[in-house]
Amino acid sequence: MAEPHRMTAARASRLIRAGELSAEALTRACLDRAAARDGEVRAWAFLDPDLALAQARALDAAPSRGPLHGLPVGIKDVILTRDMPTRYNSPFHAGSWLAADAACVSLLRSAGAVVFGKTETVEFAATGRKAPTRNPHDLTRTPGASSSGSAAAVADFHAPLALGTQTAGSVIRPASYCGVWALKPTWGLASTEGAKRFAATLDTLGWFARSAEDLGLMLDVFDPDPSDAAAPFELRGARIGVCRTPSWDQAEPATRAALATGAERLAAAGARLVDLTLPPLFDDLPAAAMRIMSAEGRAAFLPEYRAAPELLDEALLGIATNASGISRADLTDAYDLAGACRQAFASVAESFDAVLAPSTTGEAPVGLGFTGSPAFNALWTLLHTPCVNVPGLLGPNGMPVGLTVTGPRFSDRRVLEAAEAFGRAFAA
Amino acid sequence: MAEPHRMTAARASRLIRAGELSAEALTRACLDRAAARDGEVRAWAFLDPDLALAQARALDAAPSRGPLHGLPVGIKDVILTRDMPTRYNSPFHAGSWLAADAACVSLLRSAGAVVFGKTETVEFAATGRKAPTRNPHDLTRTPGASSSGSAAAVADFHAPLALGTQTAGSVIRPASYCGVWALKPTWGLASTEGAKRFAATLDTLGWFARSAEDLGLMLDVFDPDPSDAAAPFELRGARIGVCRTPSWDQAEPATRAALATGAERLAAAGARLVDLTLPPLFDDLPAAAMRIMSAEGRAAFLPEYRAAPELLDEALLGIATNASGISRADLTDAYDLAGACRQAFASVAESFDAVLAPSTTGEAPVGLGFTGSPAFNALWTLLHTPCVNVPGLLGPNGMPVGLTVTGPRFSDRRVLEAAEAFGRAFAA
Repeated sequence: MAEPHRMTAARASRLIRAGELSAEALTRACLDRAAARDGEVRAWAFLDPDLALAQARALDAAPSRGPLHGLPVGIKDVILTRDMPTRYNSPFHAGSWLAADAACVSLLRSAGAVVFGKTETVEFAATGRKAPTRNPHDLTRTPGASSSGSAAAVADFHAPLALGTQTAGSVIRPASYCGVWALKPTWGLASTEGAKRFAATLDTLGWFARSAEDLGLMLDVFDPDPSDAAAPFELRGARIGVCRTPSWDQAEPATRAALATGAERLAAAGARLVDLTLPPLFDDLPAAAMRIMSAEGRAAFLPEYRAAPELLDEALLGIATNASGISRADLTDAYDLAGACRQAFASVAESFDAVLAPSTTGEAPVGLGFTGSPAFNALWTLLHTPCVNVPGLLGPNGMPVGLTVTGPRFSDRRVLEAAEAFGRAFAA
Repeated sequence: MAEPHRMTAARASRLIRAGELSAEALTRACLDRAAARDGEVRAWAFLDPDLALAQARALDAAPSRGPLHGLPVGIKDVILTRDMPTRYNSPFHAGSWLAADAACVSLLRSAGAVVFGKTETVEFAATGRKAPTRNPHDLTRTPGASSSGSAAAVADFHAPLALGTQTAGSVIRPASYCGVWALKPTWGLASTEGAKRFAATLDTLGWFARSAEDLGLMLDVFDPDPSDAAAPFELRGARIGVCRTPSWDQAEPATRAALATGAERLAAAGARLVDLTLPPLFDDLPAAAMRIMSAEGRAAFLPEYRAAPELLDEALLGIATNASGISRADLTDAYDLAGACRQAFASVAESFDAVLAPSTTGEAPVGLGFTGSPAFNALWTLLHTPCVNVPGLLGPNGMPVGLTVTGPRFSDRRVLEAAEAFGRAFAA
């Protein structure tokens, strides 16, 4: 048997259900791996081996609650957990203990998951203090943000699964940099209640894993009654839209090469690749996403600003005080543009079986001070479409460069099936 | 000096700042009133006199934090408070104590408010168990829902101010039935973090008070940097759109008479009244709001459904399991219609100084089993526009019948100023 901490969630789950692996053994293997590696990777903001093991033992003694039963899941430290502190990487919450479970954590417990520990994040999953986390593929590089710890923990085999949140690109970007699978589902598919609010129009939960199948296990928990469970995705003959997005001029050679290679391998597998150029209406959409994020952030961070401004990073102070001077007319224009583009994208996407796009501008930057650009993510976040990061391709420095698969709102399962097929083609 | 509990918030605030009234004396007067009346009205789910008085005494000993300093505020019992239990009128939370402050409660504390107690609500501010609260104007009638306790407490002088939430019509409806002022601000203006999630597209915080000026005090706390502080609203010569909405066929004689009387009195005060008929695009908007509410409720109540379905009311089980069979295509159609109508309403509203509409289908129904219809509210909730309930008119049974003033998104202050002028005209 392989080392349990290196297994995918799906494989570990099958072994647990067959009685060939215990939740305790899996949890212990993950804890050992984290203990050996986290001095360098620093993925964890809170990890209590006794608490994780106690959950695992209780689950081993209980009837199976389904495929997630006994699987350790890392929780981004902006998501409330009743039995672990939630610190938001902010001195504001250094001493507090908010005794509640977020909606997503409650769902995971009902599904039998081991709530393993809390993963490092950018301050309030927004801006300001960076996570101390390093990219496990090259410790001199950022893992991306803001779900830095979740992406690194999964990539480095500390846990098979982790939760993140995305407001601009905080799930897909770190997944791309760390070379793991991630799904940012359709906005609204999973409740974000109990995760720190940043921008209600954009905030979306997301999941990290080491296989597409594992993401499917998470999706099953959060969306038990899919309406898009259509025929299996068949790559041969599929019509794939290659969407460079209005941010293409920010794509570095690594991303340009990855998109070209990805498209080539899909074509080699029999897919029909077609350039998908979004109408000019979409040109301002990335900027609109940033305006909405900042303007909605005013309301989100006003309570902290009023209570203790000295505990907020300069960048968050700027958001809370609208230092960039976004007017309400700018904001409603951005809302209305987003509404029009969502409807327009539904028509555009109809003529494709899947859409392929960049995940990041390139490989993970060197250093921990700049966590990379969300230029290729914010567009989809605002369009509310499901996005999967597909790993497998590498840049000139040997670092992972992911590609995004997306499609119409609520086609999450279909997009995930396409992404799985793409992943196989990339690896071919 | 009048009895302190009968004062408006603004008057009490002026006396407190002048040193002529203490927060403790005001809080004690409110507690005495609640003690005398709540056996019949049943507005409070949790009220601890010692805790309220301790806050008041601490505030009396501290420098003023502004106009809300020392004013008791009732908190709807779906909004988290770190020092009081949050029970959601659900057996699910009967024994729990979620130790966190919602964003709005944190803001109120920073502004010096006394977090007075928790007000009764419909189960999870959604559907299911009704509040035990009675309408203070006629104990045989409903106060409306789901912010039942907040509206009744303010109407019956237990507190000058209270917080509610609105997903369909849960702020404006009870305000209309109980004859108090209320403001449901523009969606996104105030963070709903820490209030129970029902439908992210619709959930909006709201405030109850006994004067328009008092609502302005609350608005100042939640939106300290208004962008719409224009010239004072002048009723004489103002162009007022009278909007019967696509739900007009549900208006009872009481509401038809109130709208006619209201319009007459505005005309008598020199306003120009013009029929505002929404384009046919808006016809399906009330139904779209209900579809979005129910579909988004699936994700919101899935955690409770998975954890303990036996503790959920039948109606909530129906939402969590999508018993009404809403498809994702229905949902995205509803989203896209809402987006188009928001943009269209911005153009329509531009040619009016304010828009007048019904608040409810009529007077508060007899009995506590049916809390009334949100038919005239859900439209505006989905359009994200600010709405003020203006009290002052009565129906054939002597019960209050409110009217709604609304306008473009983020014109909250302008709408409130118009509403204040309308209130004076109605009373003339």
